Amino acid sequence: MHEIQIVVRFGETDALGHINNTSYFIYLEEARIRFIETLGFSLDTNRWNFILASTKCDFISQGYFNQHLLIRTYVSKIGTKSFELDHDIICAETNQRIAKGKAVMVHFNFEKQQSEPISDGLREVLKSNLVLSS
Amino acid sequence: MHEIQIVVRFGETDALGHINNTSYFIYLEEARIRFIETLGFSLDTNRWNFILASTKCDFISQGYFNQHLLIRTYVSKIGTKSFELDHDIICAETNQRIAKGKAVMVHFNFEKQQSEPISDGLREVLKSNLVLSS
Amino acid sequence: MHEIQIVVRFGETDALGHINNTSYFIYLEEARIRFIETLGFSLDTNRWNFILASTKCDFISQGYFNQHLLIRTYVSKIGTKSFELDHDIICAETNQRIAKGKAVMVHFNFEKQQSEPISDGLREVLKSNLVLSS
Amino acid sequence: MHEIQIVVRFGETDALGHINNTSYFIYLEEARIRFIETLGFSLDTNRWNFILASTKCDFISQGYFNQHLLIRTYVSKIGTKSFELDHDIICAETNQRIAKGKAVMVHFNFEKQQSEPISDGLREVLKSNLVLSS
Repeated sequence: MHEIQIVVRFGETDALGHINNTSYFIYLEEARIRFIETLGFSLDTNRWNFILASTKCDFISQGYFNQHLLIRTYVSKIGTKSFELDHDIICAETNQRIAKGKAVMVHFNFEKQQSEPISDGLREVLKSNLVLSS
Repeated sequence: MHEIQIVVRFGETDALGHINNTSYFIYLEEARIRFIETLGFSLDTNRWNFILASTKCDFISQGYFNQHLLIRTYVSKIGTKSFELDHDIICAETNQRIAKGKAVMVHFNFEKQQSEPISDGLREVLKSNLVLSS
Repeated sequence: MHEIQIVVRFGETDALGHINNTSYFIYLEEARIRFIETLGFSLDTNRWNFILASTKCDFISQGYFNQHLLIRTYVSKIGTKSFELDHDIICAETNQRIAKGKAVMVHFNFEKQQSEPISDGLREVLKSNLVLSS
Repeated sequence: MHEIQIVVRFGETDALGHINNTSYFIYLEEARIRFIETLGFSLDTNRWNFILASTKCDFISQGYFNQHLLIRTYVSKIGTKSFELDHDIICAETNQRIAKGKAVMVHFNFEKQQSEPISDGLREVLKSNLVLSS
C-alpha cells in the first residue's frame, strides 16, 4: 500500500468553510505522481510516460483546513495500454475515510503523442500493487 | 441546454504544456454554479443548497492555454435527495469535445448539516433540463 | 487604459468567506497577458517574450464570490530591459478599488534563458500606455 | 528563524515548464500561517486574528516541479496595528535563494470587521523574531 500524507492548506478551502472539491484532485495528482515514482519512473517532464484519461472523486464527509490527510493508492485494474488506480483519502486524526478517488492512467508517448502498450516489466510492478477495490 | 464559455488561463496549464487535470474541475464547478443559478437558487454562501457528492472528468484530448471552451451542462438523473449533471467540454475553435464531466449533487441543509429531499418544485425544474446522456 | 473583466469563481474564495489572496495574482496574470497581447505579442508559449521579475498586491477591501471585477492595467515605468505595470482592481458593482497590483516584467529570451534589451518598437508601444501611477 | 519545507507539486507549474508565479503565494501563505501558529495563535477560522494587507514576491531564478524549497520567515517591521514579514525561498538542493517574499499583516477583528492595535504580549513575541531585512 502506497501512502502519502498532506496537510490541508488554507487556500485549498472555500467560502463554505471546507476543502474545495478541486483541491482533492491536487492531492490525488500528488499521490499518483509519488506512486509512479516508486514504480521507478523518471519525474523529468521531458521523459513523462503517462497521461490521465479519467479521474473521479467521491466526497464522503467534509474536510477542513489544517487536517492531516493520508492518501492511499493502489492498482485496481491493469489493461493493455492503461491501468486504474484507486485512492482512499483518510483523515489522520479520526482515521475515517473522507473521500475516495479513482484515476485511469494511459501509458503515453508524449513525443509521438500516442498511447503505447504497457511493457511486461511495468505489468509485473503494477501486479504487485494490485488490490481488489472496496 | 445550459452553456458557459471560458478562456483557458495561463496558470491553469502545467509543465506538460497542456491544461492541468485539476483545472477542468474549476471549469465544471463554474458550470455547475451557473446552472444552479438559472434554476433560481441564491448564490449567497450563507444560503447554499447543494453539496457535491461526487465528480468525474474523462479527458478525451488535450486542451491548451488561451483556448475558448464551451461547458455544456444538463441533468442526467434525478433521485430522491440528489441529482446528476453531465457536462461536455467543447473546444470552441474546433467544435470538438475534449472532455466529459459528471457531478452528483445532493440537496443539503448546511445549517443542519444533513441532506434533504428534493422538493416538487425543484424536481419540475430539473426535469425540464433532463437529457439522456450520450 | 487596458481593462479586463472577471467574475470571481467559487474556488477562488477561502474559509474566511472572501477571495483568497493567491487568487488576486491569477487575475493580475490574466490582465498582464491580455495587455501583452494588445501590444502585438504572440501568446504561443514557444515564443514567449517576457518573464515576471516581481509582483505585488495591496489589498484595500475584501472581495467576494461572484463579484464582477475590472482589472485595469497601465505601464508605470520603462527601463532598459524591463518595464513595470500597475493595476487597479475595481469592484464593478460599487466602482470601488478593492486592490492595487504591480508587476515588473523583463524582456526575456527563453531559448537563451537570458534577458534582452527592450527594442525601440516595443518602447514606443509601452510609452503610449504610460500613465503616472497614483 | 522560522522555516518550513515544501515540495513543488506538478499542478503548481505552468506551460513555460517552471513554477507559476501564483504558486509562490501559496507557499508564502503556508509559511505565514505556520509562523503565526508558532506565535501561539489559534488556526480556527472562527477565531482568526490577522488579515493580509499586502504581499509581494521577487523572482530571482526559476523554480521547477519536484524541487524541495525552504521558506524562511522573519519579522522585518512592527507597527501599531500591523507588522511585516520577510521571506526567503531557498532551493534546498542548491542552497540558492530563488525568490524573496514580503507580507504586511494587520491585526484584525473579523467579528467587528476592523483592525486592532497589536497587544503588548504579541509585540514582545514579534520582537523576538525581528531580523533586519537583507
